[in-house]
Amino acid sequence: MARELLESIADAPIISPHGHVPASWLARDTAFTDPASLLISHDHYITRLLHASGVPLEKLGVAGSPSDPREVWRAVCRHWHAFAGTASDFWMTDSLERVFGITEALDEDSADRVFDVINDALATPALRPRALFDSFGIEVLATTDDALDPLDDHTVLAADPGFAGRVVPTFRPDPYLDPAAPDFTARVERLVATGPTAGLTFRAYLDALRSRRAYFVDHGAVSADHGVVEPYTCELDDATAERLFQGALADTLDEASAREFRGHMLWRMAQMSVDDGLVMTVHAGVHRNHHTPTFDRFGPDSGHDIPIRTEFTANLAPLLRSFGAAEGFHLVLFTIDESAYSRELAPLAGFYPSVYVGAPWWFLDAPDAMARYRAAVTETAGFYRTSGFIDDTRAYLSIPARHDVARRADASFLARLVVEGRVSESAAARIMRDIVSTIPREVFKL
Amino acid sequence: MARELLESIADAPIISPHGHVPASWLARDTAFTDPASLLISHDHYITRLLHASGVPLEKLGVAGSPSDPREVWRAVCRHWHAFAGTASDFWMTDSLERVFGITEALDEDSADRVFDVINDALATPALRPRALFDSFGIEVLATTDDALDPLDDHTVLAADPGFAGRVVPTFRPDPYLDPAAPDFTARVERLVATGPTAGLTFRAYLDALRSRRAYFVDHGAVSADHGVVEPYTCELDDATAERLFQGALADTLDEASAREFRGHMLWRMAQMSVDDGLVMTVHAGVHRNHHTPTFDRFGPDSGHDIPIRTEFTANLAPLLRSFGAAEGFHLVLFTIDESAYSRELAPLAGFYPSVYVGAPWWFLDAPDAMARYRAAVTETAGFYRTSGFIDDTRAYLSIPARHDVARRADASFLARLVVEGRVSESAAARIMRDIVSTIPREVFKL
Amino acid sequence: MARELLESIADAPIISPHGHVPASWLARDTAFTDPASLLISHDHYITRLLHASGVPLEKLGVAGSPSDPREVWRAVCRHWHAFAGTASDFWMTDSLERVFGITEALDEDSADRVFDVINDALATPALRPRALFDSFGIEVLATTDDALDPLDDHTVLAADPGFAGRVVPTFRPDPYLDPAAPDFTARVERLVATGPTAGLTFRAYLDALRSRRAYFVDHGAVSADHGVVEPYTCELDDATAERLFQGALADTLDEASAREFRGHMLWRMAQMSVDDGLVMTVHAGVHRNHHTPTFDRFGPDSGHDIPIRTEFTANLAPLLRSFGAAEGFHLVLFTIDESAYSRELAPLAGFYPSVYVGAPWWFLDAPDAMARYRAAVTETAGFYRTSGFIDDTRAYLSIPARHDVARRADASFLARLVVEGRVSESAAARIMRDIVSTIPREVFKL
Repeated sequence: MARELLESIADAPIISPHGHVPASWLARDTAFTDPASLLISHDHYITRLLHASGVPLEKLGVAGSPSDPREVWRAVCRHWHAFAGTASDFWMTDSLERVFGITEALDEDSADRVFDVINDALATPALRPRALFDSFGIEVLATTDDALDPLDDHTVLAADPGFAGRVVPTFRPDPYLDPAAPDFTARVERLVATGPTAGLTFRAYLDALRSRRAYFVDHGAVSADHGVVEPYTCELDDATAERLFQGALADTLDEASAREFRGHMLWRMAQMSVDDGLVMTVHAGVHRNHHTPTFDRFGPDSGHDIPIRTEFTANLAPLLRSFGAAEGFHLVLFTIDESAYSRELAPLAGFYPSVYVGAPWWFLDAPDAMARYRAAVTETAGFYRTSGFIDDTRAYLSIPARHDVARRADASFLARLVVEGRVSESAAARIMRDIVSTIPREVFKL
Repeated sequence: MARELLESIADAPIISPHGHVPASWLARDTAFTDPASLLISHDHYITRLLHASGVPLEKLGVAGSPSDPREVWRAVCRHWHAFAGTASDFWMTDSLERVFGITEALDEDSADRVFDVINDALATPALRPRALFDSFGIEVLATTDDALDPLDDHTVLAADPGFAGRVVPTFRPDPYLDPAAPDFTARVERLVATGPTAGLTFRAYLDALRSRRAYFVDHGAVSADHGVVEPYTCELDDATAERLFQGALADTLDEASAREFRGHMLWRMAQMSVDDGLVMTVHAGVHRNHHTPTFDRFGPDSGHDIPIRTEFTANLAPLLRSFGAAEGFHLVLFTIDESAYSRELAPLAGFYPSVYVGAPWWFLDAPDAMARYRAAVTETAGFYRTSGFIDDTRAYLSIPARHDVARRADASFLARLVVEGRVSESAAARIMRDIVSTIPREVFKL
Repeated sequence: MARELLESIADAPIISPHGHVPASWLARDTAFTDPASLLISHDHYITRLLHASGVPLEKLGVAGSPSDPREVWRAVCRHWHAFAGTASDFWMTDSLERVFGITEALDEDSADRVFDVINDALATPALRPRALFDSFGIEVLATTDDALDPLDDHTVLAADPGFAGRVVPTFRPDPYLDPAAPDFTARVERLVATGPTAGLTFRAYLDALRSRRAYFVDHGAVSADHGVVEPYTCELDDATAERLFQGALADTLDEASAREFRGHMLWRMAQMSVDDGLVMTVHAGVHRNHHTPTFDRFGPDSGHDIPIRTEFTANLAPLLRSFGAAEGFHLVLFTIDESAYSRELAPLAGFYPSVYVGAPWWFLDAPDAMARYRAAVTETAGFYRTSGFIDDTRAYLSIPARHDVARRADASFLARLVVEGRVSESAAARIMRDIVSTIPREVFKL
């Protein structure tokens, strides 16, 4: 039954409405240089578990550490047994077979042979980013971009008659909205300078944000993404907002006031989404850069962002009171705190026409976690209040494997409901198709 | 094995010790008017997901909105695919087949045909509330009633020689115990006026509560039900309680003091339960009326009560210190925060002779959630520290379906334990019988 | 597949790196006196559920209450059906069959017969503690010992040529680190008196702790165990620490300052572990002695320690910033809050080379909870960042049953991954062996 459902959507293209592949790879279409930088050094799912296994990050080429790709690859293979049972193991194995035809297991013995096969293949035209885009069957790929990014690569791709794919930017304004972000004041000054209104006022700041969003919309963006520690929101009157804004610029806000400002800006982002139609996605609940010595040396995204408990019900009440039933507003909520699925997210998505429960994200992007997600969400919110799969990855080669895992997990869950007499076969077939096609298109307005 | 267990209790009557069917339906035994008002407009499980799917509540007849029943039914059928995998889908499908013999799927095409079949049937004597009571095999049905309800319908039913069923009221005093409830002072004045002691003192207030409880006991009540945001409890000396009570009446309490008052009154309710024997049930952890614009228009229970994290261990310590080992005291704890099952509720019920883990409630009243509940609770507390199934419903026609789902889920769980060699077949047979009979009778003193 | 994996490690000895069997039992090797005191009175897993079932603790011989062993046993058997589905049921059944050849079910009818069989067997040499140690196939058994324990029994065992087993102490300093512990000041005075530095200064206190740890290391200890309500940690400068220390001795700290002191001492324990190599284990998240009337009468460990929500990410950040990547440091984190597994513990263990996710503990030490643990942890952290099984028990006879349950649960989980094509058969075989052998030896430096 699961197999049948899977086969029924074998031809469905990949829709990837949120991820981190650099648009420049596709715009320039240059060959990948070596197996390590392509498959290891930038994949913090892999480098973190190697780090836990005793391999220093500098030996893995993290953050541009000088390293010999073959030595990096050998280190990976020497410790690959530590990945047994992880999502990374499946993604790697599947990618190596799918893209390079490699079927032997990764270990010390196979390390050099596998390295050579990959390395040789990377020099061939079939392994160029655009060729892979086609062979992977990607229909839409969203990137994630700084709010001030000029989006030149997207412009190049859109103008290139030789590239038929759809690559859309995503508006990501986090550091411009959080007074605690590094260089907040300088950032905001740069932001306001791009906008239509003079002066460092709250109104000019909002106008500049609106203007940048419009720029992204003009360049094909369908969503705005927000990474927040907590999804706290609040409505404020203009005078209070202005006062907090000036305090944020002067770096004089205490933690409570900074929280108010952040919470109000998330509310404002929803308001702007209602106005300009950008789907609002919220990725909440991560303590970033947990190990400060590693952050100091290797920078962000070096594998020690650790989830925390996340509260949605009370935090989002002000935003949803204002915009939860607004025409055309879409709010996709992602969590790594699984306890929120049945308790908060499914009930919210089961009432608000704007709210969708985001697919299992980050540490939860794996078969068992996906099964728990569907089991926790479906009985309250069904299938049609969920977001469809999001690969959220910079690991370009793993995209087909990731979507494949999600499809298998969903087919398996649906098949169980059919066998248990809870969903009819015909309903399951429709849902399976909708999950990979209708739903992501509708949720992300594609 | 699961099937055998299920068959072994096929004859067991329905015991429904907590729910929301109006006693007036049975007292008056008038025919239901139409499919929409019977099956849709009052069922917030259904109207909320339709609302999320884009159907305005006023088009569903919610809160008495004027609506054409046939149009409501068509809207339901048009969106019924959104319910695939939800508990509501099963309950509806099962009810339609069981009560009306309808087996075709709900969709736009079948909408009118199904509506007509139901509508015609509702005019027949077999579909009257009392006839259904008998055909459903209900032995006991508890209603939920305001603390000042005169319980006239219960009196009528008890006195009617033509009605053999047992319909018992449940004492529900929430708005008389919470200073934040609308019209708290006026409510308390009305309450105290019914009591034996003059004056608006804390003592007169307690006396009036005791007196109303006694009235409920005289009318057959077996339990008192408490819906609280958090199960916070505290013991206070009389002077402090009096001071908070006067502050509550004068509406001068700050949030911390109001919390103390609420917490103390929950402690007092336990004390009164120890004295008068009413089983104490606590339904905790719901943020009521999350979307205030909908509340303003449609009132409470319009589908946007959203669960929140709930803490039991520390919150209940004062109550359990005082009454946890009191002779004959029964405290049934319901949660929608599943993380509390293995962490707090099973350990509490595994020590205190008074505490029972309530069945999966509200959003968790569905097969997968029930399986998670048994898996989370049983290894610590076994089967005999759980409450037995509670349908908690106003959807009268769905009562057999709901009990059936619970029985199937329990049979399936037990069968797994037998197959895994963890429970003997004979023990499983006894447990299955006890779950639907001995346990609810004992827990609810029936 | 599961059966094959299980058979492949049938010969693996029991490694028990954390538990509560008294070393004196093995040092003196005296016969157990009777079935009740051996199997019931000290096992709070059993006495708590009997208490919940209405049997007073004093009738179970708890805390030395005078009781007739046969009457205790009869009470147990009369209520044994309440244990169906619990871990205790399996452990008891398995122990009775394994050790005494008893296969009949426990109930009122069998009570006396079973009692007599056990009672008679206890008088035989085969049932002496050392004989059982051998027949159980225990390779290493760790005890848990007060920080000032002279460890005489361990000395006796180590010096005894007639005892080939390895019994190691574990350093447990909790009441010397928590200003809220009973008699904190007197305890600290006794502690400092054993140390190398005179005067009640913070430095003398640290020196004494270091000295006691060294004493434990000299007597074979491999780990230091910390039972804390929350795993809060903080780094403090010497002056602040000294000030808090003096405040703790004078009993003048407010709750916030006491928390700082506790948090700093946990940080200090990590620092000492980095220096002396003792594996640091942290058991967090239990509200001890919940029912104070029972505590007043029966003392600690009488069955009403109730778990609470536990936060690791923020609480451990200071400790891990300082020591998370320290050479040779091992930190094993145990929780009873399952929601922390996928959200916090697996991500922490998936980055920090020092962190291991502890096996399911206490209320979670049962098949379904173990399956949930593996499913929650593996996809992020694999198998090699987990601790291996910990029986954590004083119920000596149940040790083989407990390890057997863990092995079955792991074999079953691994077999599922093999069947689902997520782990190869050869990898599963290696992992199965490592789980019971390589991993606990490495994690606990055995």
